Amino acid sequence: MTGSTAAPFTADDYRARMERASRAAADAGLAGLLVAPGPDLVWLTGYAPTAVTERLTLLVLTADRDPVLVVPTLEAPDAAQAAGAAALTLRDWTDGKDPYALTAGLLAAAGRFGISDNAWAMHLLGLQKSLPGTSYASLTEALPMLRAVKDAAELELMAAAGAAADATFEEIRKVPFGGRRESDVAGDLADLLRRFGHSQVDFTIVASGPNGANPHHEAGDRVMERGDMVVLDFGGLKDGYGSDTSRTVHVGEPTDEERRVHDIVREAQEAGFRAVRPGVPCQEVDRAARAVIADAGYGEYFIHRTGHGIGVTTHEPPYMIEGEEQPLVPGMCFSVEPGIYLPGRFGVRIEDIVTVTEDGGRRLNDTAREMLIVE
Amino acid sequence: MTGSTAAPFTADDYRARMERASRAAADAGLAGLLVAPGPDLVWLTGYAPTAVTERLTLLVLTADRDPVLVVPTLEAPDAAQAAGAAALTLRDWTDGKDPYALTAGLLAAAGRFGISDNAWAMHLLGLQKSLPGTSYASLTEALPMLRAVKDAAELELMAAAGAAADATFEEIRKVPFGGRRESDVAGDLADLLRRFGHSQVDFTIVASGPNGANPHHEAGDRVMERGDMVVLDFGGLKDGYGSDTSRTVHVGEPTDEERRVHDIVREAQEAGFRAVRPGVPCQEVDRAARAVIADAGYGEYFIHRTGHGIGVTTHEPPYMIEGEEQPLVPGMCFSVEPGIYLPGRFGVRIEDIVTVTEDGGRRLNDTAREMLIVE
Repeated sequence: MTGSTAAPFTADDYRARMERASRAAADAGLAGLLVAPGPDLVWLTGYAPTAVTERLTLLVLTADRDPVLVVPTLEAPDAAQAAGAAALTLRDWTDGKDPYALTAGLLAAAGRFGISDNAWAMHLLGLQKSLPGTSYASLTEALPMLRAVKDAAELELMAAAGAAADATFEEIRKVPFGGRRESDVAGDLADLLRRFGHSQVDFTIVASGPNGANPHHEAGDRVMERGDMVVLDFGGLKDGYGSDTSRTVHVGEPTDEERRVHDIVREAQEAGFRAVRPGVPCQEVDRAARAVIADAGYGEYFIHRTGHGIGVTTHEPPYMIEGEEQPLVPGMCFSVEPGIYLPGRFGVRIEDIVTVTEDGGRRLNDTAREMLIVE
Repeated sequence: MTGSTAAPFTADDYRARMERASRAAADAGLAGLLVAPGPDLVWLTGYAPTAVTERLTLLVLTADRDPVLVVPTLEAPDAAQAAGAAALTLRDWTDGKDPYALTAGLLAAAGRFGISDNAWAMHLLGLQKSLPGTSYASLTEALPMLRAVKDAAELELMAAAGAAADATFEEIRKVPFGGRRESDVAGDLADLLRRFGHSQVDFTIVASGPNGANPHHEAGDRVMERGDMVVLDFGGLKDGYGSDTSRTVHVGEPTDEERRVHDIVREAQEAGFRAVRPGVPCQEVDRAARAVIADAGYGEYFIHRTGHGIGVTTHEPPYMIEGEEQPLVPGMCFSVEPGIYLPGRFGVRIEDIVTVTEDGGRRLNDTAREMLIVE
């Protein structure tokens, strides 16, 4: 990401988001929000610096003044070209000056502030030193749902990203798997995602045979052969919004056990999806999917949460996990991706992005969830 | 970067680095070091997670126990394959558990710790909450020179990266500039860096005509034409170590003024280079280069520091800037890159990576510094 995103938003859109964020901060008892380069800054201003370095760039949202973007002088010309620049004031600082003192001048000396999860620790330490009376909470802790509810324009972009992921799967199932390395198919996946409009590929997992039992295995040198289960999990950003989908395919005919495990995961994914509706706590989606797998006797082999939010990143709140009582709200988008991982043998995962509607859920991925046979 | 880097280091090399870092921490009065994913973690362990997410991964180096890497259970298999894994203990944590409590159990309750500059603020806040008696300093503040002095194997990799950048420049000067967009030549630069062995391209600045007056302009749609000065600034990582070089070329014949400004920058770059020798404070390199430009009457147009360190990143301490009194030490590597930026008109920058030797400096880039004419 450089300069600005491809997303079709105007300075007014960004102004409205910054105002909404400021109100949410005040409602949460915060004196303001401090937003570092990354997805929150892109969402609030359209600005993504060319590189994130030790030089402080920080959006300061407080109730008592218009938004201010603290930015290194060198990067001010780029920042001024961001789509949201007209909705904020730039305050630049030159190498050798103290950017924390500059920022501190914009903050209440004893305020509590929300700060981006991924703000650099060195910047937080700089602020804590300049203003010892301030305190901080991470944005995800303070305002976890800040970006969670997507508006109509955002949902359209999410659906387009999902359609591109579906088109990718329809093509990848036609390529040869047997006799090729995982990394070869991963390369195909990346090419296809780009061909179908992704500007950024975040992951292209191809986990075959025993590698499938490691949920975070990416793609390696292993040559696939007949008899392998293969977990495919791929996604990235298209026009600034994310895709993330998983299907598990089989090279040649599966065994009865492989079919059974795949069926259990498919049923779990369906149960998770059917649990989605407004007002239901996130943890219920996890519970619904997990119950199917536990009832089938595989509970100990489902070793991760059922899902995560997605939007301008491919991995964000809300989380579908036991203990998350946040109720679902129409417009939220997240993955439903149960799995079973049998160490040393194989794994199965099935994942769709789902958005909450007024009366249930809507899948943004919709290719076949049956186990497909590949060559 | 995934799993491990291409750098040819063994578990013993990483063990030695971790021991050296622990000793340096103790000498600086710190109870330990907390190292997040990023260049410090790569340098200390060879480990780079596939993705940096909200899940805590943290290397804990304390004097009283062997190195511990706190890692999400999902990512433990990948971490176990890092080149330095044999020199540390993995402590994994599962979704839903509190990784800060786990980490706190490894730390002295009232200790002062160095923490990676780029550790996420949310993780620092989690630690501060779990152990309110602790205090923290950013690694760059506490141990700025931790990675600054390169050993013989590292210098060899730095020289190879520099040679690849030189080969890139020798090829790019042959391509057509006039009639093409900046972004076209930037694409050529990226292709060439990769062709000459770079696995990661960090920047390919092509700043023509008035764009050259913005030191951080990347490359845009501007079509270059005869009469344009063009600043080229490109680099990335080859086998885990960085390149970064700038040359300013001219499309067709330059004017007398353009020649004069280029000569001043070349002389300033030479003066900065000649100031390099062991024991000299970093700021003297900046002063030497800046004096040439100021004496020529262009002082106000040299709007950035003279240089930055480079190693497993392309941008790190030591900084060649007024106020930096750190003495140069043999094995340090940094850029010497003065420039003159005339708003609305053009810019000139000339940059080499220089390493400190026992009796002076050695350039790791060495293509012609005269202004070359391109087509």
